[in-house]
Amino acid sequence: MATYPKTSLNKVQRGAKRASYDIETVNQILDADFMGYVGYAYKGRAISLPMAYGRENNKIYLHGSLKNRMLLTLLEAEDISMTVMHLNGLVLARSGLHHSVNYRSATLFGKLKKVTDSLEKEKGLKCVIDQMIPGRWENLRPILEKELNGTLVAEMVIETASAKIRDVGVHDEKSDMELPIWAGIVPIKQLAETPQSDPYLPEGVAIPEHIDNYVNKNSK
Amino acid sequence: MATYPKTSLNKVQRGAKRASYDIETVNQILDADFMGYVGYAYKGRAISLPMAYGRENNKIYLHGSLKNRMLLTLLEAEDISMTVMHLNGLVLARSGLHHSVNYRSATLFGKLKKVTDSLEKEKGLKCVIDQMIPGRWENLRPILEKELNGTLVAEMVIETASAKIRDVGVHDEKSDMELPIWAGIVPIKQLAETPQSDPYLPEGVAIPEHIDNYVNKNSK
Repeated sequence: MATYPKTSLNKVQRGAKRASYDIETVNQILDADFMGYVGYAYKGRAISLPMAYGRENNKIYLHGSLKNRMLLTLLEAEDISMTVMHLNGLVLARSGLHHSVNYRSATLFGKLKKVTDSLEKEKGLKCVIDQMIPGRWENLRPILEKELNGTLVAEMVIETASAKIRDVGVHDEKSDMELPIWAGIVPIKQLAETPQSDPYLPEGVAIPEHIDNYVNKNSK
Repeated sequence: MATYPKTSLNKVQRGAKRASYDIETVNQILDADFMGYVGYAYKGRAISLPMAYGRENNKIYLHGSLKNRMLLTLLEAEDISMTVMHLNGLVLARSGLHHSVNYRSATLFGKLKKVTDSLEKEKGLKCVIDQMIPGRWENLRPILEKELNGTLVAEMVIETASAKIRDVGVHDEKSDMELPIWAGIVPIKQLAETPQSDPYLPEGVAIPEHIDNYVNKNSK
């Protein structure tokens, strides 16, 4: 099973038994989402902002306007890190300190560079859009050259990464187990609801299969 | 209406019409969640990690183990920034570049300091637990002195902040409006599901009111 190298950057410090460096595990976490948190240094502090991403093999594509402060700063710094997390449940223990959450997260480290070739830029944007909803890109009108020129596309090559997963029940002190205090898990799920068609659609344009598939897959 | 000062740190650069500096708007976004993304600088790069928080007035409480690398680094740096975002929908346009998401986000900037007084630490931890589920803390067994001593509690005083909200329909180019391409919104919601009681609960311990309230409030 292929794994990422453990370095001082990605080695999980706390809760190491929940950590994984398995490339496939990291990819599954990335592929179940499309928004990650990217940090960048600005005026001496690290600012953390959400960005849409697309993954293809060991590459993460990001995009933004040509003036995007975060992307421009990161392209200059080259080194980049991104975290993706899915919250799966609240872990409610008998004591405050054993409260926790169930989750799956991945933190990636790598180098970011600007994509300049038009075909490569288009590939990167397709990757980001299809990460949001598989099959979306081929249903859209083709992207225009001037749109490509007005968009900043960047690719991060993942150099190393770690995953962290908590998916077990409540842990409490043995001495607390007989207390008459309710403990348990409240599962949390992110769900898609009924699509709302744009009121300006021409008559006869129905909800396409790729949208139905997405909603079905992400409903209760 | 009280607002945060606009500085070079928090002034929203892109999509300024979606920005708000209103304190009440920022607080509403913070109070609808309990996990934020905090950035910290490590070996020259900004790492972004999720942390549970609690808000009280203009203060954000964070906690972790005494060896928490992120908190210790941030306490040394003092300056801290945190972002909270709720994803509310996928905005699916007729062209790739007009794809977007509906969301509510808040980015905070402030100073972080260690809480050392035991009563203040307890107040901070109560704030974090009750942010997750209101009313939880008073249902737990009291925290022990040795647990308090083994926990790092930090408070961030919010100096400035910004909110960003997108909650409108699809925007497309006028020239694309007649295309036979489906466009619309897929609403996204984070929901709580049926609580799973810990199998080791003593007989007769029922799901308490504060859990029922939480699940009802966060269900369909």
